[in-house]
Amino acid sequence: MLKNTLKKKLIPVAVLSTITAGALIGSFSNNEVQAKEVTKKNEIRNVIFLIGDGMGVSYTSAYRYLKDNPATKVVEQTEFDHYLVGQQMTYPEDPAQNVTDSAAAATAMSAGIKTYNAAIGVDNDGSTVKTVLEAAKEKGKSTGLVATSEITHATPASYGAHDVSRKNMNAIADDYYDEMIKGGHKIDVMLGGGLTNFVRADRDLTKEFQKDGFSYVTNKQDMLKDKNPKMLGLFAPGGMPKMMDRDATMPSLRDMTNTAINKLAKDKDGFFLMVEGSQIDWAGHDNDIVAAMSEMQDFEEAFKTAIAFAKKDKHTLVVATADHSTGGYSVGAKGDYNWFGAPISAAKRTPDFMAEQIVKGADVEQTLKSYIDLPLKPEEIQSVKAAAQKKDLVTIDNAIETIFDTRSVTGWTTGGHTGEDVNVYAYGPGSQYFAGKIDNTDQAKNIFSILKNGK
Amino acid sequence: MLKNTLKKKLIPVAVLSTITAGALIGSFSNNEVQAKEVTKKNEIRNVIFLIGDGMGVSYTSAYRYLKDNPATKVVEQTEFDHYLVGQQMTYPEDPAQNVTDSAAAATAMSAGIKTYNAAIGVDNDGSTVKTVLEAAKEKGKSTGLVATSEITHATPASYGAHDVSRKNMNAIADDYYDEMIKGGHKIDVMLGGGLTNFVRADRDLTKEFQKDGFSYVTNKQDMLKDKNPKMLGLFAPGGMPKMMDRDATMPSLRDMTNTAINKLAKDKDGFFLMVEGSQIDWAGHDNDIVAAMSEMQDFEEAFKTAIAFAKKDKHTLVVATADHSTGGYSVGAKGDYNWFGAPISAAKRTPDFMAEQIVKGADVEQTLKSYIDLPLKPEEIQSVKAAAQKKDLVTIDNAIETIFDTRSVTGWTTGGHTGEDVNVYAYGPGSQYFAGKIDNTDQAKNIFSILKNGK
Repeated sequence: MLKNTLKKKLIPVAVLSTITAGALIGSFSNNEVQAKEVTKKNEIRNVIFLIGDGMGVSYTSAYRYLKDNPATKVVEQTEFDHYLVGQQMTYPEDPAQNVTDSAAAATAMSAGIKTYNAAIGVDNDGSTVKTVLEAAKEKGKSTGLVATSEITHATPASYGAHDVSRKNMNAIADDYYDEMIKGGHKIDVMLGGGLTNFVRADRDLTKEFQKDGFSYVTNKQDMLKDKNPKMLGLFAPGGMPKMMDRDATMPSLRDMTNTAINKLAKDKDGFFLMVEGSQIDWAGHDNDIVAAMSEMQDFEEAFKTAIAFAKKDKHTLVVATADHSTGGYSVGAKGDYNWFGAPISAAKRTPDFMAEQIVKGADVEQTLKSYIDLPLKPEEIQSVKAAAQKKDLVTIDNAIETIFDTRSVTGWTTGGHTGEDVNVYAYGPGSQYFAGKIDNTDQAKNIFSILKNGK
Repeated sequence: MLKNTLKKKLIPVAVLSTITAGALIGSFSNNEVQAKEVTKKNEIRNVIFLIGDGMGVSYTSAYRYLKDNPATKVVEQTEFDHYLVGQQMTYPEDPAQNVTDSAAAATAMSAGIKTYNAAIGVDNDGSTVKTVLEAAKEKGKSTGLVATSEITHATPASYGAHDVSRKNMNAIADDYYDEMIKGGHKIDVMLGGGLTNFVRADRDLTKEFQKDGFSYVTNKQDMLKDKNPKMLGLFAPGGMPKMMDRDATMPSLRDMTNTAINKLAKDKDGFFLMVEGSQIDWAGHDNDIVAAMSEMQDFEEAFKTAIAFAKKDKHTLVVATADHSTGGYSVGAKGDYNWFGAPISAAKRTPDFMAEQIVKGADVEQTLKSYIDLPLKPEEIQSVKAAAQKKDLVTIDNAIETIFDTRSVTGWTTGGHTGEDVNVYAYGPGSQYFAGKIDNTDQAKNIFSILKNGK
């Protein structure tokens, strides 16, 4: 059984580091010494921590096969594949649930403690716990949060706020402004969705941030031309559209990541940046393989940007992982020993987008033919026509998703999360501490330790 | 899309080794040099390669939570967890299927080539390819195969035989005897099920092997007291029963592994041993979480035995992995954020065993109460009673499995295999070459390279 009792005692960081290093290096004990010396030489100034929300092993595997170039003799590795160092356990400490939500998982990774599902930077007593973002700011570094969800959503919130519930997104936005460290705001760059949590009847935080010297932008073009190292960018009322549904005024996750890195890297004391590919999970909840793969691409490109910076910089640690898996997604289903990416790549928009057009009155066949680059079978078109008669968005969405599930041989077991271990990818000085089988709390413990011992 | 075209070109071993080492060691280029020096010092004499058939990431994750001691403050790591070094890709090169079967996967791991599903040590032209077991024997080492399936089943067969089809298990048994290397039989120790493939109307291979100096045993007690370094042990007509259904005359996978190691280790030239936890996969095909976890335990204990030997010996490389995942098994299902091991641990026998008793006429309620240490609900008993009226083994088995799926919150998407990457665990000198994201063909390429460069 997963741990579902509240537990306080944790393995000390030192012990964990030893286990981790041991798992990586096997029986080569003198390698461990070597690694430590090298770390000292390659001082860690910056940490970029990327979270693919819901990005379980089936997602990273499927994405590789989807992207594979059929003209070459081998399956090309993804950007993630090059940096695989291990896996993490994800279980929370919740009295009622032993599969984690994104809040408990992000708090584990941001603060190094196990807590209950829905907790934002608080422990099981509801007490505030310090996050790695806050520790970085205390150390004089610049800090940033980037997400395609509301920037106040569970994952980024757990790095920059403290609340008993993830639902209190207005209060979380308030925390971003009100909770000061050394007399300044604790987050220098915030880029994502969630405008309605900042501009409210009771308060307009966009004005408050601007008054305190932050640039405030709401589109890609303004974001790109701005030179201010402090920025609040809110590109949608709630979550941003999926990558494939975004228009040209909206930045990609790569655009936002790149902008954040450029601004934060101006600080000679270094920076901490958390980047979330938020909607891999949302696609998983919806059992939507088209949207999931679109969001995987958005996240991979952000990861590439982080890696490219780290390779040049040489003092940047990059870690990428997931908080949990979502949907019980399997690569292959129903006895068929196949999985095909081509039908998924044929979609130009998400099933959600198409269903919205149809529910607004667009012709079913015309809509499907416009956005799916495949010769659809009459029975596939008919299945969506039948669904459209109910004039219900979810029913139509499900009918379109079924076409992709069937053609790609994709299986699902749940609309929620699952408890499998998720992969950990790492590059740069210190990456060895994240190798082997670690716990999600080790992510924070390692970064606290790096901040403590580093410059 | 998974590769489903026949491809011949393969990345050279040297390039792959560099990629692998790079993924492990990240940016520490001088560590690589260090690792190579250490390898030279810690010469690799023996290789124990363990395959958990069907043991996807959900299986290794769930098994940890099932085994967790609720009296302690943390979730205890499994024996596997301590040695996680990365993952492997599993896709085959089959004209009709891009999710692998066990034969193509085992041939990739034994011979370093991609081939079609069902291929036993042959490539896409049906030509024989050399296996690491054969290379070890050519080098003068002792060799062994251990499995809980028929010892002629797809996985062990791909190390010790060559056939266009996995179905030809009699011909595979013949290969074990007939294919000689340097004038001797190529496999010194064979332990598992599959008696009917050796004792046949046309041939009795057990007598032929005995005539050539092999001990032949059919029960645990005889196996344990035997001192002959050459042994054929066949403990069931076909596959052995699942661990929890075995009687005291049958060896566990640990018993067989331990016996094989003891015999093979008498050879001063070293040995190659392949051990398969064969029926994790069979349980997955059956969507039977009780049997799957029982087989995980059997396999973990065999792995522990291998690790314990390697730790003492210091010249033994141990690698454990899976050939693919099975069943689309998810830890949590149907929107429930939980997974419970306790109901699974309450089973004393597999659902298959219980269903067999019932179909033979045993009372439903009595049978369930005898073999399931849980207060069953009236509706659970009723569901099996209703199934029993059909007097069909599979129907009854499914009804019992549903009780465990519901109580443990287990999900499945298929009765077949799935294409997700699977974990790789490694310990001992050379373990670093198996780290990061590797291909299943790299397993063989690495071992060939070790055999070539080693003693």
